[in-house]
Amino acid sequence: MDEFLKVALEEAKKGYAEGGIPIGSVLVHNGTIIGRGHNKRVQQGSVVLHGEMDALENAGRQPASVYRECIMYTTLSPCPMCSGTMLLYGIPRVVIGENLTFMGEEELLRSRGVEVEVLNNEECYNLMQQFIKENPCLWNEDIGV
Amino acid sequence: MDEFLKVALEEAKKGYAEGGIPIGSVLVHNGTIIGRGHNKRVQQGSVVLHGEMDALENAGRQPASVYRECIMYTTLSPCPMCSGTMLLYGIPRVVIGENLTFMGEEELLRSRGVEVEVLNNEECYNLMQQFIKENPCLWNEDIGV
Repeated sequence: MDEFLKVALEEAKKGYAEGGIPIGSVLVHNGTIIGRGHNKRVQQGSVVLHGEMDALENAGRQPASVYRECIMYTTLSPCPMCSGTMLLYGIPRVVIGENLTFMGEEELLRSRGVEVEVLNNEECYNLMQQFIKENPCLWNEDIGV
Repeated sequence: MDEFLKVALEEAKKGYAEGGIPIGSVLVHNGTIIGRGHNKRVQQGSVVLHGEMDALENAGRQPASVYRECIMYTTLSPCPMCSGTMLLYGIPRVVIGENLTFMGEEELLRSRGVEVEVLNNEECYNLMQQFIKENPCLWNEDIGV
């Protein structure tokens, strides 16, 4: 498996072990992880800390020049919030574990020049499917349904 | 002035007094404020807590049915992150203090059915202009420039 997706998946599993929504993300700058995180809806009662947002928050305040050399790795296709955040900071590339469970704003990202790669990783998919089976309402809450 | 924009502006002024970026927002559900907040980049070293995000975070976890009856009031036109977040939660209406300092994703919001109203309030505008004059780099950082 891609080494950075593997770290994102570790984050997702950490979230699952905490009773949270198992989505993890890693922000990589020129081959180095500068932020990693996972969804904190349950753990912190947060409505904004999806995996991508948590990874960005944990990377701290970075100059625009850094974001523009970053790749976001995330276990699940990014929702409108996380996609908009990548557009705000000009992150040029996103690598997605899977988009079968949820199709995010991949088309919007592409239309704005972001490179979008979908790996269709089975482990990412299976973790989400298991979680949704166990917690359908929590999952709906997270995607505003 | 619109009573809720007034509260959003109070939040913006609070941010300014704290040495932060003076943008404030209020989430209103059926005429009642359920969350208010302001940009926390400086105060909390946050890269995700724009005014709208802070207001949503302070409103706490709400069911989708609540978000769908909400109006977001914000002193400045919402950036891609905040616009995407409103799309995620299905907030149907946003009232904007001004969009002369910064033009956010108003067209994207409208294209997805969100009602966008711009008040062009002079006090919101003047506060941002004063801040940007004093802190041009901080402002650029906040919009990913």
